Amino acid sequence: MKKNLFLPLLFLMAFGFSSYAQEALFRAQNIISPEILSDNSVTFRIHAPNAKAVQVTGDFLPTVKMETPMGEMDGPGKANLTKGENGVWEFKTQSLGPELYNYSFIVDGFSTTDPSNPFLIRDVASATNIFIVGGGHADLFKTNDIPHGTVARRWYDSPGLGMDRRITIYTPPGYENSTEKYPVLYLLHGAGGDEEAWIALGRTAQIMDNLIAEGKAKPMIVVMPNGNVIQDGAPGEGSKNFYKPQFMIPKTMDGTYEGAFEDIIQFVESSYRVKANKANRAIAGLSMGGYHTLHISRYYPNTFDYMGLFSAAIMPREDATGKVYNDFDATLKAQMDNGYKLYWIAIGKTDFLYDANKEYIAKLDAMKMPYEYVESEGGHIWRNWRIYLSQFAPRLFN
Amino acid sequence: MKKNLFLPLLFLMAFGFSSYAQEALFRAQNIISPEILSDNSVTFRIHAPNAKAVQVTGDFLPTVKMETPMGEMDGPGKANLTKGENGVWEFKTQSLGPELYNYSFIVDGFSTTDPSNPFLIRDVASATNIFIVGGGHADLFKTNDIPHGTVARRWYDSPGLGMDRRITIYTPPGYENSTEKYPVLYLLHGAGGDEEAWIALGRTAQIMDNLIAEGKAKPMIVVMPNGNVIQDGAPGEGSKNFYKPQFMIPKTMDGTYEGAFEDIIQFVESSYRVKANKANRAIAGLSMGGYHTLHISRYYPNTFDYMGLFSAAIMPREDATGKVYNDFDATLKAQMDNGYKLYWIAIGKTDFLYDANKEYIAKLDAMKMPYEYVESEGGHIWRNWRIYLSQFAPRLFN
Repeated sequence: MKKNLFLPLLFLMAFGFSSYAQEALFRAQNIISPEILSDNSVTFRIHAPNAKAVQVTGDFLPTVKMETPMGEMDGPGKANLTKGENGVWEFKTQSLGPELYNYSFIVDGFSTTDPSNPFLIRDVASATNIFIVGGGHADLFKTNDIPHGTVARRWYDSPGLGMDRRITIYTPPGYENSTEKYPVLYLLHGAGGDEEAWIALGRTAQIMDNLIAEGKAKPMIVVMPNGNVIQDGAPGEGSKNFYKPQFMIPKTMDGTYEGAFEDIIQFVESSYRVKANKANRAIAGLSMGGYHTLHISRYYPNTFDYMGLFSAAIMPREDATGKVYNDFDATLKAQMDNGYKLYWIAIGKTDFLYDANKEYIAKLDAMKMPYEYVESEGGHIWRNWRIYLSQFAPRLFN
Repeated sequence: MKKNLFLPLLFLMAFGFSSYAQEALFRAQNIISPEILSDNSVTFRIHAPNAKAVQVTGDFLPTVKMETPMGEMDGPGKANLTKGENGVWEFKTQSLGPELYNYSFIVDGFSTTDPSNPFLIRDVASATNIFIVGGGHADLFKTNDIPHGTVARRWYDSPGLGMDRRITIYTPPGYENSTEKYPVLYLLHGAGGDEEAWIALGRTAQIMDNLIAEGKAKPMIVVMPNGNVIQDGAPGEGSKNFYKPQFMIPKTMDGTYEGAFEDIIQFVESSYRVKANKANRAIAGLSMGGYHTLHISRYYPNTFDYMGLFSAAIMPREDATGKVYNDFDATLKAQMDNGYKLYWIAIGKTDFLYDANKEYIAKLDAMKMPYEYVESEGGHIWRNWRIYLSQFAPRLFN
């Protein structure tokens, strides 16, 4: 038990912690990337002494036109890093506006994550580095020193789908220490997403904690199910364990999920202290989740008082045979006649679903079905969906 | 509402999903890596058409000697990939034994994660790809089709540290649907870890679900706190938000954490249905968490019936002034005299803490303090700690 054991011990632990970690510690130990400076410019750094050219690409750079199998589309811009001392390359941006951004590096033509930034989010099959420039609406995406809700990953029984399924549930600050009953927002992901999408990419816990602390949203439970009925859990989290996620998953828009959605409501209302009535149920979703929202809110009559369609895929598919899609016009009219508090539709001006949403709105106008319409800049991106959630949640349960 | 809208829509969604995701989808869409073959050999693939040399490095390869500031140490081996069609490089391993492995690529000397594998875990400041070769003990690390517990990330009030702090809590299958009271295992991370370490790197939820389903462990609550008293939450999860994690964090081994540990017990015993007595409390930890376990179990008299020291840092530091470290020998003897069910010490033969553990055991022998000692192969690595947990948990609360 020697006094001089301590420092070498810590040093050894740093390198012995895992034999694998040794290299990582040597390689990256002195590099800070990204570094957000006081004027909200951002410096990226990467140690690549043998590289001939290094670029950074991300959604903070102006978009450029790129060729795709679908024709010319907008792609993320690129900027060149400059090689400095010790093989460390750098690029400093202009001052950036408040936002959660993503990026990657291109080293001699090879795309890679930033080895100095361990914060990544998975979007379908890609892990991407992220960073936040604070201020304005982006402060909603940060963990602040305020009361926090609980995020639980649970499994529920779905008789309709014949399996136990994983689900993510946010309960607001104070839930565990009260006897109060709470309203519920069901929040649905898009194609390629799962029960991790809204909590990770959507920053739901941070947005709700912040809105509730500011008094802008009522304390509510947020339920984030998995809309891919062939999965029991997200890739890497369900019984298929690790596999390469695919964007196009069978049976996601054939009515199976909508038809079994009552299992989720039943689970939530029997497992949590909730106000189990229409006035205290909201449902919203992005893209495919907007499509699910449209159909679920119409298929289960008189169940939800609040609907949110975020960049929704608007389609009663004529080739879809699920009974959920039967009698579309009549059940939509019934939904209108039963009444509701809010039917909220948001879409970006450059979203590829813009025209479909305009067409749907024309249909609602023709049948005099009330709705609110929000048109934002930008396209079919998480940046918009985080903002739509932060606009929609304050409208609920008032 | 045209029938032919559907396929182009899904295709567009694939590329419009986020402007950033477009490139990732083109680049990686047809590459499966790693691919685990039926004989448990594994093929790695990477698309790097401009590269001159590509290697894979990981803990499935034989270790090699590497130079470090501390002298020659074992480092992970490397293997060369071979360039094939379309710029895709490949390497196929021999048949691998059951294990959770990690790896990265080296492209022309630059270390990078695998762009085709979005499953990564963060260890201190590095994100590393992982994969599982199943069978034997490695099946404990998989999500299987069995009843699952719940994993909650909550915040608790620590008066002793003057802040709300984040904590990870596993409740066993059935907890929510019973009135039963459960025993509790407090499970502590090592230096550089946090409240995410055991659940992510340690696969605690999978191990506990599997052991409980097999009848090998009693249903129990597992509490995974954050042992870094200057953090309210893990890097990226607390109020400092994203920053580069450091291995050496101030005040982790100065007695502050151990002295405030009663806040955690108080929180757990007032928030969960637990059997709040010595016979139903266990505490275990790895490395620094083993050090914390040693001191907490000694400092809070007659509180725990089960102690697990996994590759523990064994030090009553002579320069540590925290009152937790006072009267070491007398309080250790009091712990022995009060009695307990199990004092379990495990260490790998090549662990740099091997000698310190042997020295501690000699001390216990001299004072006739009972313990069980398990000596494994290998060093100071998560591979051992996952196995130690799967050996220790079945010994609890019988």
